[in-house]
Amino acid sequence: MSNALPSEGMDMVSRQLLRQLKDILGSDGLLSDPADLVGYAGDAAGGLPEVLPDVVVLPTQTEQISRILTLASAHRVPVYPRGAGTNLSGGVVPLEGGIVLCTVRMDRIRRLDPVDMYAVVEPGVVIEDLNRRAGEHGLLYPPDPGSVATATMGGSVAEGSGGLRGLKYGVTRDYVLGLEVVLADGRVVRVGGRTIKNVTGYDLVRLFVGSEGTLGVITEITVRLIPAPEASATFLATFDDLGRAGRAVADIVGAGVLPATLEIMDDYTLACVEEHAALGLPTDAAALLLIEVDGPRETVEIEAATVEEVCARAGARSVQRARDRAERDRLWAARRAALPALARRRPVTILEDITVPRSKVAEMLTFIREIAARYGLEIGTFGHAGDGNLHPTILVDEIDDRVEAAVRALVGRALALGGTLSGEHGIGMAKAPFLVEELGREGVALTSTIKRALDPLNILNPGKFPGRWRG
Amino acid sequence: MSNALPSEGMDMVSRQLLRQLKDILGSDGLLSDPADLVGYAGDAAGGLPEVLPDVVVLPTQTEQISRILTLASAHRVPVYPRGAGTNLSGGVVPLEGGIVLCTVRMDRIRRLDPVDMYAVVEPGVVIEDLNRRAGEHGLLYPPDPGSVATATMGGSVAEGSGGLRGLKYGVTRDYVLGLEVVLADGRVVRVGGRTIKNVTGYDLVRLFVGSEGTLGVITEITVRLIPAPEASATFLATFDDLGRAGRAVADIVGAGVLPATLEIMDDYTLACVEEHAALGLPTDAAALLLIEVDGPRETVEIEAATVEEVCARAGARSVQRARDRAERDRLWAARRAALPALARRRPVTILEDITVPRSKVAEMLTFIREIAARYGLEIGTFGHAGDGNLHPTILVDEIDDRVEAAVRALVGRALALGGTLSGEHGIGMAKAPFLVEELGREGVALTSTIKRALDPLNILNPGKFPGRWRG
Repeated sequence: MSNALPSEGMDMVSRQLLRQLKDILGSDGLLSDPADLVGYAGDAAGGLPEVLPDVVVLPTQTEQISRILTLASAHRVPVYPRGAGTNLSGGVVPLEGGIVLCTVRMDRIRRLDPVDMYAVVEPGVVIEDLNRRAGEHGLLYPPDPGSVATATMGGSVAEGSGGLRGLKYGVTRDYVLGLEVVLADGRVVRVGGRTIKNVTGYDLVRLFVGSEGTLGVITEITVRLIPAPEASATFLATFDDLGRAGRAVADIVGAGVLPATLEIMDDYTLACVEEHAALGLPTDAAALLLIEVDGPRETVEIEAATVEEVCARAGARSVQRARDRAERDRLWAARRAALPALARRRPVTILEDITVPRSKVAEMLTFIREIAARYGLEIGTFGHAGDGNLHPTILVDEIDDRVEAAVRALVGRALALGGTLSGEHGIGMAKAPFLVEELGREGVALTSTIKRALDPLNILNPGKFPGRWRG
Repeated sequence: MSNALPSEGMDMVSRQLLRQLKDILGSDGLLSDPADLVGYAGDAAGGLPEVLPDVVVLPTQTEQISRILTLASAHRVPVYPRGAGTNLSGGVVPLEGGIVLCTVRMDRIRRLDPVDMYAVVEPGVVIEDLNRRAGEHGLLYPPDPGSVATATMGGSVAEGSGGLRGLKYGVTRDYVLGLEVVLADGRVVRVGGRTIKNVTGYDLVRLFVGSEGTLGVITEITVRLIPAPEASATFLATFDDLGRAGRAVADIVGAGVLPATLEIMDDYTLACVEEHAALGLPTDAAALLLIEVDGPRETVEIEAATVEEVCARAGARSVQRARDRAERDRLWAARRAALPALARRRPVTILEDITVPRSKVAEMLTFIREIAARYGLEIGTFGHAGDGNLHPTILVDEIDDRVEAAVRALVGRALALGGTLSGEHGIGMAKAPFLVEELGREGVALTSTIKRALDPLNILNPGKFPGRWRG
């Protein structure tokens, strides 16, 4: 992170503003020593510039955030909201310097109601911590991004994150019932509520979910919880042919089974994971599927039989069921190791997030292979195949024309197949150059209209979508 | 409907504009004879003024709608979009006259993809027709408002409607993947797509879902379908005490069963239904619960046993399982007859749509009784108890102070219990006076900001929320 650039507007934060911020936060709620700023220059996305902010604020209350934004508006200083920074699109990079507003110190679970099955949390609560508490009541918060052990609820809601359970349980936007948000000018607004049915006015909740810190700072989140499934069964299916694995994905769902998780990993990723973690995976396979069905015990057994049968019929070399908790944990550890294992191979990791209709997964996988060959690139692919959400990951020493051409080709094909350029990682800086290809000029114009209406001074996360970042 | 008022701006539509509209639509796509306009003066909500539009347009293509809105913008003439007009909040009443834009002639199912499980429909497709087609492929479109047999997809999406299956399957907003929308100035924008995971830019899909025709005209809808459940079991549970029925609702869900449907009907409603339809319901009971569990056959049997046991433990007088299709249909006919049966009792029907957290259902039911007694009003209550979504229905000869005081008390209590004033019927005219009580001044201001940004001339459904209608 020593390569973080000083921001263009290095002196955006005047001595006067710094003093005012200290008055709000106290000296332990503010970082301005350059050595302390380095950790706030970027996020987990690779291949993107990092930029040092002028100051980092660590508020503990909504009222402080309101005052910070009022000040920032008065001084016209950019504010970059962030959580733990595990996001994968450069969304939190403080491109124009100014203030990074990090909500990790707001980490209380304010309420967990096991009868009405909802939780009220502060934005800095770690996703896994919420699930630990929910689990004590036999409940589950389903959204499950790869980074659950460190990612915060605030960041996850702002990014609209997806994860491993999307196929059966949906994504973050499906679980947020209500929000408290501080708007760009410091006003505090509460939207939504605690009930699932609520059509009072516009869907302001989902306006903020996935808005990537460009419309407001999320300061409280009410989420729906569901009864945790009684049982589960986990499978590792091995294939000698990538396309065949892709077709098995569509066949499983076509057979009426909606697995909680249906993940794919290609041979390249598999080799990296095995080298990294030595879990005893079959490195001579062309692809793996990791499948988990869950629900009432009896249903799980019926669906488990269907999964085994469909995989065999689709030409799987083997289908192996995890016999116990330890084996299941080993399989999931392998899946969660995919990105870190790939990222160790080369200095630069370009992680894509394309999503296609499920029936096009096999075609997309084949196309990724063609692109790797055409441009002489190493590309490992893993992802949420059941959702059609694939993460082809390009590994290079540095970004060059080949990388850019490959990314453009992958995005173009995903859109041509009726898909999207981002299933769950968001736009940030990484995908901003492609926004218009998916939304069209009218869609980008509408996006800009909303941004201007809510943040007319453009102080919230400026320089990202729908702004001027052009890669 | 002979009591429909002429609109304030009766001559909003000039001869020139009328000629231009005829050029776009042809003579069979436009109604301007006063006798033909009467059917477009109101909707299914009771106790609200109806207003005659100047002209009704019946487009068949998106491009026509784009030209109509371009013209309306140029002439500053209001446009009131509508489908079949089954909505229950006065949302489609053309308060300021002008143009009613009715999309019922756009009624084609453009695509139904059984592999990727989505459908692309025009706004005039009737919900039940989509489900008939989906059923041929073993699929289901779950949102199920009471008016499925006539309500259109466009109206249902614009209202964000809920219905009988909300508890287990969610509501309309959970099933819309993509939209084509014509904006106020005639621009056509496509938002969302076909995949469940999609975080490219703001959630523009849900910005329009439930926007009640105030932000754009929906011209194409892509919805997610799910595999139809294999089996179901339907129960009628009878209670001698309303509060006990309310508690049984929370107990069923607390026992880990999420019924597809969990409906309540009080004794007053019960008597009306029985008088109306003579279905052999137990008119001496204080309340009925109608419960349906669905899913894989084995799971259904397990859940059915739990439902019977929990109801018995909660003090049900009897729990009766529908033995066959005919008995099940009879029970559902009773439920769907609730509103029409109540509405026949008195000239004016005031239907509320309050929603409270599930654990507060018993308390809310008791409070409704108190209010009926306090103001000497006849109130029948039915609704989606599992969602906490209750429809207390006030039946009077004419609206007076007692009615207004009662409505205010019901809304106030619902909000105090952590609920919402509208679970599924929307704001329209009926709930507009209460908007600020739920959203607060900041929330209403944010709503207005969005409205102004998307419809700066205020030509789309003007006079409704967040506008000036004040009851």
